[in-house]
Amino acid sequence: MYRTKTCGELRISDIATKVVLAGWVQKSRDLGGMTFIDLRDRYGITQLVFNMETNEKLCKEARSLAREFVIQISGIVTERSNKNINIATGDIEIIVEEFKILNKSKTPPFTIENNTDGGEEIRMKYRYLDLRREPLKKNLILRHKLSMTVRNFLSENNFIEIETPYLIKSTPEGARDFVVPSRMNKGGFYALPQSPQTFKQLLMIAGYDRYFQLVRCFRDEDLRADRQPEFTQIDCEMAFVEQDDVLKVFENLTKHLFKEIKNIAFDNFPKMLYDDAIRYYGSDKPDIRFEMRFVEITDFAKGKDFKIFDDAEIIVGINVKGAAEYTRKQLDALTDFVRKPQIGAKGMVYVKYNADGSIKSSVDKFYSLDDLQKWTSIFDAKEGDLMLILSGDTEKTQKALGELRLEMANQLGLRDRKVYKPLWVVDFPLLEWDDENSRYHAMHHPFTSPKPEDEHFLETSPEKAHANAYDLVINGVEIGGGSIRIHDAKLQAKMFKVLGFTDEDARNQFGFLMDAFEYGAPPHGGIAFGFDRLAAMFGGTDSIRDYIAFPKNNHGQDIMISSPSAISDLQLEELSLKIDLRKKEDN
Amino acid sequence: MYRTKTCGELRISDIATKVVLAGWVQKSRDLGGMTFIDLRDRYGITQLVFNMETNEKLCKEARSLAREFVIQISGIVTERSNKNINIATGDIEIIVEEFKILNKSKTPPFTIENNTDGGEEIRMKYRYLDLRREPLKKNLILRHKLSMTVRNFLSENNFIEIETPYLIKSTPEGARDFVVPSRMNKGGFYALPQSPQTFKQLLMIAGYDRYFQLVRCFRDEDLRADRQPEFTQIDCEMAFVEQDDVLKVFENLTKHLFKEIKNIAFDNFPKMLYDDAIRYYGSDKPDIRFEMRFVEITDFAKGKDFKIFDDAEIIVGINVKGAAEYTRKQLDALTDFVRKPQIGAKGMVYVKYNADGSIKSSVDKFYSLDDLQKWTSIFDAKEGDLMLILSGDTEKTQKALGELRLEMANQLGLRDRKVYKPLWVVDFPLLEWDDENSRYHAMHHPFTSPKPEDEHFLETSPEKAHANAYDLVINGVEIGGGSIRIHDAKLQAKMFKVLGFTDEDARNQFGFLMDAFEYGAPPHGGIAFGFDRLAAMFGGTDSIRDYIAFPKNNHGQDIMISSPSAISDLQLEELSLKIDLRKKEDN
Repeated sequence: MYRTKTCGELRISDIATKVVLAGWVQKSRDLGGMTFIDLRDRYGITQLVFNMETNEKLCKEARSLAREFVIQISGIVTERSNKNINIATGDIEIIVEEFKILNKSKTPPFTIENNTDGGEEIRMKYRYLDLRREPLKKNLILRHKLSMTVRNFLSENNFIEIETPYLIKSTPEGARDFVVPSRMNKGGFYALPQSPQTFKQLLMIAGYDRYFQLVRCFRDEDLRADRQPEFTQIDCEMAFVEQDDVLKVFENLTKHLFKEIKNIAFDNFPKMLYDDAIRYYGSDKPDIRFEMRFVEITDFAKGKDFKIFDDAEIIVGINVKGAAEYTRKQLDALTDFVRKPQIGAKGMVYVKYNADGSIKSSVDKFYSLDDLQKWTSIFDAKEGDLMLILSGDTEKTQKALGELRLEMANQLGLRDRKVYKPLWVVDFPLLEWDDENSRYHAMHHPFTSPKPEDEHFLETSPEKAHANAYDLVINGVEIGGGSIRIHDAKLQAKMFKVLGFTDEDARNQFGFLMDAFEYGAPPHGGIAFGFDRLAAMFGGTDSIRDYIAFPKNNHGQDIMISSPSAISDLQLEELSLKIDLRKKEDN
Repeated sequence: MYRTKTCGELRISDIATKVVLAGWVQKSRDLGGMTFIDLRDRYGITQLVFNMETNEKLCKEARSLAREFVIQISGIVTERSNKNINIATGDIEIIVEEFKILNKSKTPPFTIENNTDGGEEIRMKYRYLDLRREPLKKNLILRHKLSMTVRNFLSENNFIEIETPYLIKSTPEGARDFVVPSRMNKGGFYALPQSPQTFKQLLMIAGYDRYFQLVRCFRDEDLRADRQPEFTQIDCEMAFVEQDDVLKVFENLTKHLFKEIKNIAFDNFPKMLYDDAIRYYGSDKPDIRFEMRFVEITDFAKGKDFKIFDDAEIIVGINVKGAAEYTRKQLDALTDFVRKPQIGAKGMVYVKYNADGSIKSSVDKFYSLDDLQKWTSIFDAKEGDLMLILSGDTEKTQKALGELRLEMANQLGLRDRKVYKPLWVVDFPLLEWDDENSRYHAMHHPFTSPKPEDEHFLETSPEKAHANAYDLVINGVEIGGGSIRIHDAKLQAKMFKVLGFTDEDARNQFGFLMDAFEYGAPPHGGIAFGFDRLAAMFGGTDSIRDYIAFPKNNHGQDIMISSPSAISDLQLEELSLKIDLRKKEDN
């Protein structure tokens, strides 16, 4: 028994009791005749007092305690004269009678404070010290609370958590697999799952009706700041359901989480067609904390000898309320913004509807006041508003305007982190055309069902088919998505064909699933939420790394444990592998 | 909306309501004018009725429905004349008004019944059909209930579930690692964790105080019937604890599970020293549902010219109560049993204390009646008892007698599956000597702390050191184990040295942990329960495979998805790997 109490629980009612505490020295202050030490553990901080007058020897010894030493103390709880209202134990302090150093500490390479002085690299290397900081601790506790809440909600709603295997089979569809060489089956490999997709479908075929799993998934992709090679997903599947049945359960889950974690209640989440999301927001994950919907003026702006518009497939803009006072310099900066390669617009047209009722645009020499007044009317612009207009190819222009819309919202402070606006985006396209490889890709995955009324497109113009596929978007962030699956062997075979699989490929890779469809597969569908991202959203930040105890860096490395690393020749030999670092010639 | 009710919920109170159900055709019976179909879903079975007289067309159509067809029906709930008390819906049946085939089914390759006619291989190949059977469904639902109960208990006891990485670093200590080649770090490999051991220790150093995780672990071992290459563990760690603190929490968890799952209450679990477990039961996981403790007679049985005993290091036996009537044939069979290579004894001596008071033994020509009476007294044998005695090298003889003890209990029906006898086995040896490699192995793992009073043995006779290590054993099955860890860098370094690590090896493999010990590591310890085995124990069977949705076979294969399998040349090339199936020459 190392302690009778934790550092977070003593209150005024404990005064005069004798306690034993253990924890870390957060900081130490010598004030002439007294030494104060803040003792820290997971549960809080408790102030320790040593007095030169009453116990000189002990007080002197206490002065040797440095930051992050682990100590055990015993003493008497007393009332503080100088109360600290910022901490739960701020009413009391401990007059220490004895202490023992349980372990010493070198000086940490960065401060263990809310705002540390340590850079990212050093904090990753000493992740166990970084994890001592309050913000990271809060994040991991939030994550735990979320996972418990999710599990209990789903379990109470008749979902069963079923573990699916991590050593599965590599399939070239989707992102790159991580693979695991098999020693017992020479030359063979397992793959780590990118998701338990086929297994959860098999569980529906097996009659489990409602499955869930908080499950690790693996993708060997080139990493961006918000991607990790391993990530966690709330994975679900339901049998005998249509799209609305799935949306209802997971809308209820999301509402429940908001209620439990943030005490926020919601009405029903709005639904938006994918096509509308693109048309009005230029994104399949629109941030609807603010309006600023796209307004198309293609038909009104052509034919006035403004070549850029005349050549454009689309002319579309946004009305930025109250931004007419943007200066020339600010407008130029916006033009620079849309011209950045990752945004991709060629230029930007603005129309200011000034507070005094006058109209000023960057295309005054092409358009009459009448023309511009017509535009303001279409944009529903009022005095003081600013219209920003892009033009060009439809897809690119919509995307660029979507980025500009977010940028304007950022500049005007319309993306309040404390406001949450969930949205279902539904009816995604089934397929997307891959120019590079001249083939169709499944927009969601190859098991997603087309809308029944669009099935006929599979044989004529597959790109026109919409899918029973949906995403949950909150504040412009995709929290998760899913679909109603194909449960008919013939339709699945047709889908594989559209995706360019030969019969043999389809059989090799997914024969087990197509077989399973022959033995009484029920209609089924599901959804998966990105759990790391969900935690980050509830925590109010964008960085999923801060919600993962031991994340990898952008090179897929854990620099704390120095992984990946070389393995022994014996291991390679047992696996029948040789490393071949020669670059393959381009031929 | 495919259904208004499930197949498990309709009761007498639902009579006369109209319902829509969906599910699988379990079986179909034509009785002249009527057709009865049992419709099955996860929740139960409901009887459907079709009547030739009232609806000939529908009834005829219904007769085309074969086993495992997926159908949707609507109809009226009515009271059954012939109630079935074996099912929850047995009071009612549905007069079907309409039905629709949602999906057809081929005839399954084996029957979907509690006792199926399918062999193991075919059931593994069609696992999704095997999983439809009630016994497997019950197992997976039990597993889910167990995991929820474990999580809620630990969470309520201030444990936080924290996910640790699956892509970690290979270390040659312990079993073989599965490795994962890194594409982004050419020639480098991740390893899949055999357990999150070092990460949970780092979490203690990071101040998380109480950690748990239901976590997948991976070991590339040659498989036995009860081993899987991936398995799940309830993994826990606590800071500022001694052995008894850990035992208390996990004893409470175990009691809670028994109460929740089986409604069985327990007193405190007994504790047994490892040395006593070996001495009295010949096993570190004694089954204490029955006594039959070992009795040593080495000092009494030597010196009577019976060479086998005279040459033995130990002479030890068990008293099998009430087995004196074992026939010569039965005794010969026991001798054959102990002589099996996996048991390893050379022979067996018996002494019968017959019901009439006479004594008969297989060594009558060496021992006088006085001698044998002396033995019976030491064995505390009564009329009707049978003493079975083995002799030889201590360790082998104890092990063989332990097996014989279990065999006798099996024969006498002393191992009742409905009786549960938990036991803590404590104070395991720290190390075991590996003859083959002439080195010490850590009995638990290299991070286990020696008993403080035994630390000095590390420098003199390491094999004598006992560890702060413990196992929970229930009915002779090891449910889990753990230890108090080393938290001192110097002691850890000494331990690595005893285990034959060079400083450089220790640094390369565990430098991060040894570094972490320098920054204020608290005393800590933990435990892990094998979750698959725990589920099997609560389910009342030995086969962990029946508690895993998609297990591998004894060759590490999933024959349903045909994994492991070959990967493409492109994948190999991206990973800078070549497969080399040539056998290495013995040189």
